[in-house]
Amino acid sequence: MFDQLKNSLERLLPLTREEFVYFVTLLTPRKLTKYEPFLRAGEVCREIAFINQGCLRYYYLKDGDEFNGQFFFEGSWLGEYHSFLTGQPAIQYIDALEDSQLLVMQYNDMQKLYDEIPKFERFGRKLAENVVIGSQYRTASLLFDTPEERYLKLMRERPKVIERIPLHHIASYLGIKPESLSRIRKRLADGR
Amino acid sequence: MFDQLKNSLERLLPLTREEFVYFVTLLTPRKLTKYEPFLRAGEVCREIAFINQGCLRYYYLKDGDEFNGQFFFEGSWLGEYHSFLTGQPAIQYIDALEDSQLLVMQYNDMQKLYDEIPKFERFGRKLAENVVIGSQYRTASLLFDTPEERYLKLMRERPKVIERIPLHHIASYLGIKPESLSRIRKRLADGR
Repeated sequence: MFDQLKNSLERLLPLTREEFVYFVTLLTPRKLTKYEPFLRAGEVCREIAFINQGCLRYYYLKDGDEFNGQFFFEGSWLGEYHSFLTGQPAIQYIDALEDSQLLVMQYNDMQKLYDEIPKFERFGRKLAENVVIGSQYRTASLLFDTPEERYLKLMRERPKVIERIPLHHIASYLGIKPESLSRIRKRLADGR
Repeated sequence: MFDQLKNSLERLLPLTREEFVYFVTLLTPRKLTKYEPFLRAGEVCREIAFINQGCLRYYYLKDGDEFNGQFFFEGSWLGEYHSFLTGQPAIQYIDALEDSQLLVMQYNDMQKLYDEIPKFERFGRKLAENVVIGSQYRTASLLFDTPEERYLKLMRERPKVIERIPLHHIASYLGIKPESLSRIRKRLADGR
């Protein structure tokens, strides 16, 4: 159950067996069925989760329309970071797109972890840095890449998204209509 | 010269005199005159800077048009974080909007700092977390607030922007045309 977590942590910082065991005692397993929410906009996000299995999406709701922010798969950490850090209401929803298994850590336990084993500050730093890298990369892509370039990048860099996420969700993530995505896919399949 | 830096650091983590002095040895003072660039898009950002005095702006350039991303004043840290962390070319420009005095830290010195005094991991964590908070706050405001709401928030939460930044730059930051900002300001002044 904890192999994937161990590999993921060890890419961020070397840990002794005792440190890893202590980390694990702060986690609670949780199962989500497909479409079940992890968080709703307006709630305060008081926990982050490691995805042991499955896939979740972030999205905004505006005037009744959903705008997908990001997809996360097994091996990643998720949470509505702005809300988690500030205690203000979340602006995004987080839902499971597949039956998913999570390992959940509460905000207070994370602060305890930093205080008791300062080495884990690096874990927190890397988590936050990865959020920055992901969100600035996405902003740049939305600003500067054409929809077709965005789709090609996704195929190249995140094949899991293409394989496991329904097309209408991918279109929303790319900032285009499903019809436009179908045209792009057809054009690429025809080799034009 | 280092009082403001000391106050800023102490809000993030308690430091001994020796730790602070060591931190300062890793900084290099740099002056920028008004409009002088700190970083150009396409370059790799290999340093971050504490603003001791002055004001700088981040902006994107697209099809010859500038889009302001953020303004930073004395007491803040700045850098093109995505580029700084990944070593990839920056997508934003950073320019001085006033004559400015910076204290600059190189990427390699920051990694050395983490390794030699792990306590500074918390400094790095807080820096990254503040970037996340700022960018998610801005995304939400652009998505959900009207231009007038964005301007009112700016007046309330960041009066320095209203006092020190030229109106056309504020309009670009709010995602509206300068004429629209003038109308909003007139409406507010008339008390409507």
